[in-house]
Amino acid sequence: MDKKPQTYLESGVNIELADSFVGRIKAMSASHHQSLSQNRNSNLLQGAGGYASVYQTGHGAVAATTDGVGSKLLLCEELGVYDTIGIDLVAMCANDLICVGARPAFFLDYFACGKLKLEEGTALIKGIIEGCQRADMLLVGGETAEMPDLYAKDHFDLAGFAVGFVEHGKLLTGDHVGEGDIVIGVGSSGIHSNGYSLARKLIAPGSKFRSELLTPTHIYVKPFIKVMNTIGGDLTGGANITGGGWTNLNRLNKNVGFELKAMPLSPIFAELAKNNIERAELYRTFNMGLGFALTVRGQDAANKTMEIFNSSEYGFSAEIIGQVNHLAKKIQIDDLILE
Amino acid sequence: MDKKPQTYLESGVNIELADSFVGRIKAMSASHHQSLSQNRNSNLLQGAGGYASVYQTGHGAVAATTDGVGSKLLLCEELGVYDTIGIDLVAMCANDLICVGARPAFFLDYFACGKLKLEEGTALIKGIIEGCQRADMLLVGGETAEMPDLYAKDHFDLAGFAVGFVEHGKLLTGDHVGEGDIVIGVGSSGIHSNGYSLARKLIAPGSKFRSELLTPTHIYVKPFIKVMNTIGGDLTGGANITGGGWTNLNRLNKNVGFELKAMPLSPIFAELAKNNIERAELYRTFNMGLGFALTVRGQDAANKTMEIFNSSEYGFSAEIIGQVNHLAKKIQIDDLILE
Repeated sequence: MDKKPQTYLESGVNIELADSFVGRIKAMSASHHQSLSQNRNSNLLQGAGGYASVYQTGHGAVAATTDGVGSKLLLCEELGVYDTIGIDLVAMCANDLICVGARPAFFLDYFACGKLKLEEGTALIKGIIEGCQRADMLLVGGETAEMPDLYAKDHFDLAGFAVGFVEHGKLLTGDHVGEGDIVIGVGSSGIHSNGYSLARKLIAPGSKFRSELLTPTHIYVKPFIKVMNTIGGDLTGGANITGGGWTNLNRLNKNVGFELKAMPLSPIFAELAKNNIERAELYRTFNMGLGFALTVRGQDAANKTMEIFNSSEYGFSAEIIGQVNHLAKKIQIDDLILE
Repeated sequence: MDKKPQTYLESGVNIELADSFVGRIKAMSASHHQSLSQNRNSNLLQGAGGYASVYQTGHGAVAATTDGVGSKLLLCEELGVYDTIGIDLVAMCANDLICVGARPAFFLDYFACGKLKLEEGTALIKGIIEGCQRADMLLVGGETAEMPDLYAKDHFDLAGFAVGFVEHGKLLTGDHVGEGDIVIGVGSSGIHSNGYSLARKLIAPGSKFRSELLTPTHIYVKPFIKVMNTIGGDLTGGANITGGGWTNLNRLNKNVGFELKAMPLSPIFAELAKNNIERAELYRTFNMGLGFALTVRGQDAANKTMEIFNSSEYGFSAEIIGQVNHLAKKIQIDDLILE
């Protein structure tokens, strides 16, 4: 008997199921596209299904970033919840894009799994689309890969790719972050999507905080764009507080120091802090309750920024947490110094 | 005793090693960027290290695509060869971009692994950079994720993301593929990067063809761009023959039929064919020796196309393999009909 597979299906890859999955994605994308602004759609010259998606652009620059959600996705399987991790995926990319002054435009996903499951896969895409709505982006394409020999049956990985456009003169390089700039922190929804290899061990299965670990990452795009349009050049920087925690401020401008006040510990961060973890390690790994930071020039700009984020339209919680200070050593949080 | 990890390192993620890895990537990227055309570099306003990479664009449209290399990457570990799979990753994306008439511009990678290993990781990036050189693209960013609880120690996955630009009026939609157009096939380097869940089983460990399975995918970008600039509107379509094999022609234009001649079986495809696989399954899964197809209008355009691909500058092997024929049923290869 020849035991070798004689079809692609027998080799473990189910093309028909994949086709059904693509069909579902198409239907979901169609209604997603209809719900976005007319401008987003008319700029899409060619969408998913072709070899590449094509998007109309004017003058300016294009910004691109890629990210994943780390081992947060292992919680999907554990908790049986698949429809929010896609929000995290979009958030990780979209929150990065705005840091360079780009307005997010479109998104592509890479979804790899051991065994394609229609319901779970559909829920993942549903989350991605929800994330795209929140970020005002078009999902324009993606890749689904079924690899039974690489991933365990119930395992999968996700990667996201986001493209945005920067208007002429609006690029945020961090070069304009200057002495006395006010640092505004915006509340996170929890741990967001970084540090999960550690967080999943500190908040073990059985903990009443376990399910909170799956809370989707806040997407700061809409208020940030409004701030950018409102205060213009007085917005000097944006920092997505992701992997590396508060050391992310160093990415803004290496030549300045930041003097911050300690962040009040919300319950989930207090729970993380219980485990004899050094404070510096906490701030270097987690967002500690504030998932995004902006630097702005002047109290007036700071007030307008907080007003926009805190408005009922967006419902974030933004507050002044410190300032740029050349006397501060890199990032100084009260007596704590982050290198 | 509290057995919970107290640092990110103890949770299985080695940040210092990751930093070393990023340092290596930076050094390799710097020399890669220097070696590309001046134009490519001056358009890069902000490269890796920031939140997003920013690339200058003029008028026109931006094209984007994402892909992986499937389970071909499992062969890296088996054969201990890590420095070519990156070429495949770039090829999968770049060969897709040109199909819509885009000139590839920049690339980002997502690299996830169970345990980051400096030598293997560096070799992977080396391959990606080599692929970018062949495709005349800039590697502008990427994400490295170490996830010990998702991937087995020696396992990894790769996803690629490529962006290109389409000049006004140059978009290839397939709408202009018309009756009598000549189909030109361009030789592949082997199986390329699709169908490996099946191919790895048909060509089992121990086979003299096993190591050939890792041959990197041809990158057709440079001659394709030259053809586009040379024959202009007489180039009506480009089809990357990837997952789905020759059914990829259907993606060009659903309203036409293609009449092709059978492809001569090179040794590796003859080896695949030995396993009682139906011919239709072979053509639906593999490229069968020709990894890319173009449709052109008129014999003169066909001659110029073949001349460019076959020139000593590019060294590909291009030949006429059929024509667009409304009498053909979808894709007809001699007596074989692919639905």
